[in-house]
Amino acid sequence: MNPFDRVSIVGVGLLGGSLAKVMRRLGLAKSLIGYGRNKANLEEAKNLGIIDQVAPDIQSAVKDADLIVLCSPVRAVSQLVMKMAPHIKPGCLVTDVGSVKEPLVREIIALIPEGVFFVGAHPIAGGEKSGFRVSSDTLFEGARCIVTPTDKTEQSALKRVVELWETVGMRVSIMDVKEHDFIFGAVSHLPHVLIFALMNTLGSLKSENHDEITSFSGAGLKDITRIAGGEPVMWRDICISNKDSILHCLDRFQVTLNQLRSGIEQENGELLTQEFESANEHRLNLIGNV
Amino acid sequence: MNPFDRVSIVGVGLLGGSLAKVMRRLGLAKSLIGYGRNKANLEEAKNLGIIDQVAPDIQSAVKDADLIVLCSPVRAVSQLVMKMAPHIKPGCLVTDVGSVKEPLVREIIALIPEGVFFVGAHPIAGGEKSGFRVSSDTLFEGARCIVTPTDKTEQSALKRVVELWETVGMRVSIMDVKEHDFIFGAVSHLPHVLIFALMNTLGSLKSENHDEITSFSGAGLKDITRIAGGEPVMWRDICISNKDSILHCLDRFQVTLNQLRSGIEQENGELLTQEFESANEHRLNLIGNV
Repeated sequence: MNPFDRVSIVGVGLLGGSLAKVMRRLGLAKSLIGYGRNKANLEEAKNLGIIDQVAPDIQSAVKDADLIVLCSPVRAVSQLVMKMAPHIKPGCLVTDVGSVKEPLVREIIALIPEGVFFVGAHPIAGGEKSGFRVSSDTLFEGARCIVTPTDKTEQSALKRVVELWETVGMRVSIMDVKEHDFIFGAVSHLPHVLIFALMNTLGSLKSENHDEITSFSGAGLKDITRIAGGEPVMWRDICISNKDSILHCLDRFQVTLNQLRSGIEQENGELLTQEFESANEHRLNLIGNV
Repeated sequence: MNPFDRVSIVGVGLLGGSLAKVMRRLGLAKSLIGYGRNKANLEEAKNLGIIDQVAPDIQSAVKDADLIVLCSPVRAVSQLVMKMAPHIKPGCLVTDVGSVKEPLVREIIALIPEGVFFVGAHPIAGGEKSGFRVSSDTLFEGARCIVTPTDKTEQSALKRVVELWETVGMRVSIMDVKEHDFIFGAVSHLPHVLIFALMNTLGSLKSENHDEITSFSGAGLKDITRIAGGEPVMWRDICISNKDSILHCLDRFQVTLNQLRSGIEQENGELLTQEFESANEHRLNLIGNV
């Protein structure tokens, strides 16, 4: 794709930092400007030549930009967009990386001025580690990205946003915001909530002779609880922003868990075997899919 | 340690097969005899030279053995011990590999004849894959093994069982049966039950345009749900045998989950951040421990 003249990355953490790195490597931006709360990260990014300029405030960050990528935690974004809106130049393309789309997209669209084009995106990249220090110019390679246009999205803007994420290596799917939030509430947010709860349950259990009972766990528990290392503010924002889908998924989970619990309580071997066989099958589908 | 004259492995799956392989490699058994339901596996083990003989029935499997290792699913063990008991020769050492200890140890002790020495063990080895085909002579290397003597265990028998598991490469801890079942109810059985339930929840959810919503998951879900591939019969037996501990842990988990659920419902950002920070800390403890 043709390079952008001036790209503004708002929030230079794992995703923003990785995007800056890959855009630099591929020559997708003549000039890259970074804005964020963590000034040390921004200075480091500048010293490494990943961004050209550290913006002193959000207004100068977005002034003259022809691409703005919003990479701040989901619930910080609206406030930032409110502040930047009057300073965005007409024709500017705006996208984001938020894990929750419906409320975010609605808020941003309401705030963004006429003649500026916003198209929401959710690159499915990054693990439990966060921050600029773990960013990488290969983070997006081969991973999926969901782009969420609305009825009012300009087709040319949609095309350019899809092209951007594809150019940095992602497999792009187009999806409605509501469907996005339902699906990711299920496959990402629900598992995170459960594992956070599991980790806190295990952390609070003590046995007669052993304070740290998790020292007896096998490799399995280490794998399962990796996502319990997720960044607290990011996950707080996701939980609140995608509340309805997460509560719905938790209710569905609760029904399944209650059934297993009864099976155990009543020593119903047949039910337990069936449930575990069914889990085996779903697991095989999942491996086939990933 | 001095080699045993005649070792009988009852159940030649992942654990039994791995034990036969490593005992053969280390020359710990002058003669190895295998017994199990899966005759094809047993013939294969014999053709590979891992066992010397396939026992046609449980009586001939244990006759003349000076070490018997019980490797069948937890709830199949008692029945087998009942059948083999009259045929075990005095002085024989018996151990097992069951993931649940209190009921199993109690049942075995009640069935085993005078002059035969039983000491329970739980080698923490093996993942979601089961069966002889994935057995390996390095399975036990560096992993933990919990040995669970009772008040009546002969000290010399305990010493020999500890030596056996250490010789095949394990780090042995001694633990009371009740404490064992509590700890493994928490760090192993609870996570399995939750992940089985999560997998079945996700497997049953469909979105408007996508039947297989798990195809959108990142690598995280693949890691988390690995244990949903656990062998159904083995896990049915574990759930029923360790019912009390598992139900207790499920109740503790439910309290933690309910708290998170309320935090989400009430959009209580402070509570959510605290809970996630606490999960981050417990996770760090766990990584330090594994």
